[in-house]
Amino acid sequence: MAKKGILFGVGVGTGDPELATRKAWRVVGEADVVAYPAPDEGGSFSRQIMAEAISPDAIEMPIVVPMIAGAAPAHAVYDAAAARIKTYLDAGLNVAVLCEGDALFYGSFMYVLARLKDEYQVEMVAGVSSLMAAASAAQQPLASRADVLSVVPAPLDDARLEAAILGAESVAIIKLGRHLARVRGVLERLGFLDDALYISHASLPHQQFLPLADAPADAPYFSMILLYKGDALWG
Amino acid sequence: MAKKGILFGVGVGTGDPELATRKAWRVVGEADVVAYPAPDEGGSFSRQIMAEAISPDAIEMPIVVPMIAGAAPAHAVYDAAAARIKTYLDAGLNVAVLCEGDALFYGSFMYVLARLKDEYQVEMVAGVSSLMAAASAAQQPLASRADVLSVVPAPLDDARLEAAILGAESVAIIKLGRHLARVRGVLERLGFLDDALYISHASLPHQQFLPLADAPADAPYFSMILLYKGDALWG
Repeated sequence: MAKKGILFGVGVGTGDPELATRKAWRVVGEADVVAYPAPDEGGSFSRQIMAEAISPDAIEMPIVVPMIAGAAPAHAVYDAAAARIKTYLDAGLNVAVLCEGDALFYGSFMYVLARLKDEYQVEMVAGVSSLMAAASAAQQPLASRADVLSVVPAPLDDARLEAAILGAESVAIIKLGRHLARVRGVLERLGFLDDALYISHASLPHQQFLPLADAPADAPYFSMILLYKGDALWG
Repeated sequence: MAKKGILFGVGVGTGDPELATRKAWRVVGEADVVAYPAPDEGGSFSRQIMAEAISPDAIEMPIVVPMIAGAAPAHAVYDAAAARIKTYLDAGLNVAVLCEGDALFYGSFMYVLARLKDEYQVEMVAGVSSLMAAASAAQQPLASRADVLSVVPAPLDDARLEAAILGAESVAIIKLGRHLARVRGVLERLGFLDDALYISHASLPHQQFLPLADAPADAPYFSMILLYKGDALWG
């Protein structure tokens, strides 16, 4: 019986192909099968990042995730993707699944992982997440010394947003989208509007960072707010 | 007058040289001067990670930070380091400062940055942080969907530890060292001992991950606790 293949969960960073790790580049280049999430229409962002690394001989496998606002993760999509990946692994092929940022930081790879980890050998390749890329774009510390750093999804209700913002010295608010105006209101009410930064498309040529007060009304998916309230900032 | 050099803040990842980004490798290879924190005795960990990238023609500049437990960051050390980096930048040389993990995630680079950012061009190269490397070692999601993720330094007092642990679905407790037993006590009291994982030396050949209940009494610097309490884990 053939030896089973290995499943690789590969974080590819936030957009600049040079922000992929050397390991991501090698693992993806050597993979027999390269899988990646893709929207209904248009290209896959993670595939675009790794385009030059993928071997021309590799089998490519888009995992098409319908973009329905508010929908729960599409279990059927991941069931089908896992079943197909299984057939490759059983045939002895190594499969690399590309993940924007880091695979385990709010990523969809965990749904694939959950379905396959008990049966197959898995190797994770950690990646540069949007959190670090945003701080680099803003050239502002994320956290220092005894600071608590909280990552807070914008869809949470005002009460939880407030508690998270007040409970930490450093706050990153992610998944802004249509929640931007409300989140901005919460920060203003708490007196932090002037200290908050808005960053979009970190690491890409069109990256933007500006005071939250000057941010556009509609935030793209690849954007976040950073707020640093600590006093240990500048050593 | 010669053009001034550029200051690069380079995250080099957590130990495996392959976990450095392609950009880190290139920038460090091209740098005229490579600076890195180093202990009083023994080698620099970040230099060791990037040893094969550094040009044999580069000027190397260890920044020796005395390892005195509980001491505030050594202002004098960073004043002197900044002054020396200034002389290189003024001479038109590019200077890369190596930083374990990511430079802005609890890193000392911010002290150099604060002293030089107003006068010189700075470029940040985001890196894979210990947070992502630890989750990869444990093959466990850091956070998903609407989870709040909090990063909590172990030296905080019990009340702040408890508040941070109770306020988030996912918690990473860093800077364990001699605080491990106390932190373990807090988690046990809150009923989370059996869910917490202990990870050390993530990404290195001797990386370890085990239930916190089985962790060694004394934690090395490169270790952390991950606790996932969310219910949205496995899609």
